[in-house]
Amino acid sequence: MKILILGIDGYIGWPLALRLISRGHTVSGADSLFTRKRVKEVNSDSLTPILTMEERIGKIKELWGKNIEYYEGDVSDASFIYDLIERIKPDAIVHLAEQRSAPYSMLGLSQATETLTKNMIGTLNLVYAMKDIVPDCHLLKLGTMGEYGTPNIDIPEGFFEIEYNGRKDNLPFPKFAGSWYHWSKVHDTNNLMFANKLWNLRITDVMQGVVYGTRIKEIHETKLYTRFDVDEVWGTALNRFCTQAVIDEPITPYGKGMQRRGFLSLEDSINCLTIGLEKPPSPGEYRVYNQFDEHYSVNELAEITARTANAILGKNCKIEHVENPRVEKEEHYYNPEHSKLKSLGYKRSRELKDDIVNILEDIQTFKDRAENLRNVIKPKTFWRKSSGITKNNPDSIQVH
Amino acid sequence: MKILILGIDGYIGWPLALRLISRGHTVSGADSLFTRKRVKEVNSDSLTPILTMEERIGKIKELWGKNIEYYEGDVSDASFIYDLIERIKPDAIVHLAEQRSAPYSMLGLSQATETLTKNMIGTLNLVYAMKDIVPDCHLLKLGTMGEYGTPNIDIPEGFFEIEYNGRKDNLPFPKFAGSWYHWSKVHDTNNLMFANKLWNLRITDVMQGVVYGTRIKEIHETKLYTRFDVDEVWGTALNRFCTQAVIDEPITPYGKGMQRRGFLSLEDSINCLTIGLEKPPSPGEYRVYNQFDEHYSVNELAEITARTANAILGKNCKIEHVENPRVEKEEHYYNPEHSKLKSLGYKRSRELKDDIVNILEDIQTFKDRAENLRNVIKPKTFWRKSSGITKNNPDSIQVH
Repeated sequence: MKILILGIDGYIGWPLALRLISRGHTVSGADSLFTRKRVKEVNSDSLTPILTMEERIGKIKELWGKNIEYYEGDVSDASFIYDLIERIKPDAIVHLAEQRSAPYSMLGLSQATETLTKNMIGTLNLVYAMKDIVPDCHLLKLGTMGEYGTPNIDIPEGFFEIEYNGRKDNLPFPKFAGSWYHWSKVHDTNNLMFANKLWNLRITDVMQGVVYGTRIKEIHETKLYTRFDVDEVWGTALNRFCTQAVIDEPITPYGKGMQRRGFLSLEDSINCLTIGLEKPPSPGEYRVYNQFDEHYSVNELAEITARTANAILGKNCKIEHVENPRVEKEEHYYNPEHSKLKSLGYKRSRELKDDIVNILEDIQTFKDRAENLRNVIKPKTFWRKSSGITKNNPDSIQVH
Repeated sequence: MKILILGIDGYIGWPLALRLISRGHTVSGADSLFTRKRVKEVNSDSLTPILTMEERIGKIKELWGKNIEYYEGDVSDASFIYDLIERIKPDAIVHLAEQRSAPYSMLGLSQATETLTKNMIGTLNLVYAMKDIVPDCHLLKLGTMGEYGTPNIDIPEGFFEIEYNGRKDNLPFPKFAGSWYHWSKVHDTNNLMFANKLWNLRITDVMQGVVYGTRIKEIHETKLYTRFDVDEVWGTALNRFCTQAVIDEPITPYGKGMQRRGFLSLEDSINCLTIGLEKPPSPGEYRVYNQFDEHYSVNELAEITARTANAILGKNCKIEHVENPRVEKEEHYYNPEHSKLKSLGYKRSRELKDDIVNILEDIQTFKDRAENLRNVIKPKTFWRKSSGITKNNPDSIQVH
């Protein structure tokens, strides 16, 4: 299958490319290198050292004799996307090329605007280019479990039957996201449902949980590593906790720590995405998966991290709750459904309690790099303080 | 009350300004004159002749001795909005300054992108400027009944209780809009719910039905007219039908004509918005109104138009169904709730069967202008044919 990965340089994009190549697919990719740049702007870096895209491609050629056609560019540039799809004529497109940090989107008005508009424009460019050039192509788009928020009822996979005033309909689940980033994914989901209705495009919309882990089975040497972010803007809670454990900082859950989210390992995320690609939806079908295996509260993550670091690295971890920078329910019901991928043959292969050993070992291996990130782990981005613009002189506008 | 009207030059904005002034409020306004420009681009014009904003302001000074502070600028320009709100420090902001044509948003990718991003950015700029400068200000934002789509169940006013797998929650009604324009309003609604949660802003989100009519009681002379669009891009079905009746063209419902929507008169829309402003939500409250009085199918609109034009203008109207340019259900259930405004004291004052006489008479008065619009009334903008970008040379991108 000819598969185009948008966001091929990213945490998910790179291991997915490795997996798809190793399964015999023809892989091409594009990336704007947005995440590399933006992570540096907050004085952070991938904890794992990563090669440049050019070096990565060279490495794959050297190891496996396979070529990845790679283009540097931004999906929010319509001409770039049209040219790319015209050239590749892919059977499937994996769209991972969105700004993917909730805290980044909450830094201030300009980051909120950038996240909301660029993510939306990219997805819009894609569906127009698909209907104009490759109308039978399958779009596999990464959404997030965070689109649903934390309602007090079970969360279905995308759609469910609602009864109201004695009548019934099958409708999209009402979303309530927790950051501009998460809302950008809700807006994408809405736009994709409409694009499917307009042009019968075949689309898989993946509501993915939080992904953990540094490796998949194809990552058998350091030079194949994918990025791994641990700072307060670009890293997940688990990544921060593991790094804090290794560099002997207290582990810092936000608020009460009873916030509960769905999780899966990087290996299993790649397994799921591969199944989604190899078992595409029917022509004209829009399908939604909830893609996660386990759910944990932030406190449980902190405890697992502390317990494991104490056992394998001889640490003596402390857990210190800090003020929650986010606006979120700190205690809530959480029971999302996730059976559709299983019905396509997906079986979970990893568990957090095992994978966390690898994560801690990898951080330990790059402990010098972790030490350099000490000052960017604790929360600085507070949702309610998201900054506006500097107030200009009111006289700059014309009165009539 | 100090009220800032964004979009003061528009169909709703201008009569709202007249009403609020006549009720003793201090009115200021801004407009980018976007609609005037864009309507000219499709070789159309307001059927009613309208003054420039400067002339309008002069007229109000002359007639009522009242001043409107007016600024030309775009809400999608953050500096403009910050400066404006800093200068005015309004008690309430009415946000009508969005691209408001469904067909315009479906012309092609660039109009889709423009509609989705500029509408979103404007609303985002506003909530940031409010929380930074006037956190207690009331934002009254115009949404549309079209956000809900046409589900097979009753439509509540914003939120409803859902029971699923034996548990209950009060959640936003799941939206399903029918054009990029309508989706832009859904995205705004979602962003406003989140802004309210972040910063406790007080917001009224108005899900307004289709508005008909050329006048409100304050419009007692031609020079006070608001704009009235009748072309296929900027006009509503009823406006097109009435114009077709006057210029002896067949009345052309789209498709089967069983599509049903909520309607209210311009007079009553202004009544509703005024009640919304004079009875603001509590601090921290986000409230939603469904703002309409009656619902009609497109066929019913065509029949009322034909019957009335035959009776009062001696016409012999024909109704000719044309291919539906839109992607929409042509037969569906439709029963939205609309009791919240009534509970605030709103009483309907007009009915379509009476107002349509004024509309037809006004079009008859400006029959020469209507004749000039003959070629822009029938549908040219087909949803499924929304154009992408011209395909560039694939060699314009760099291969690595």
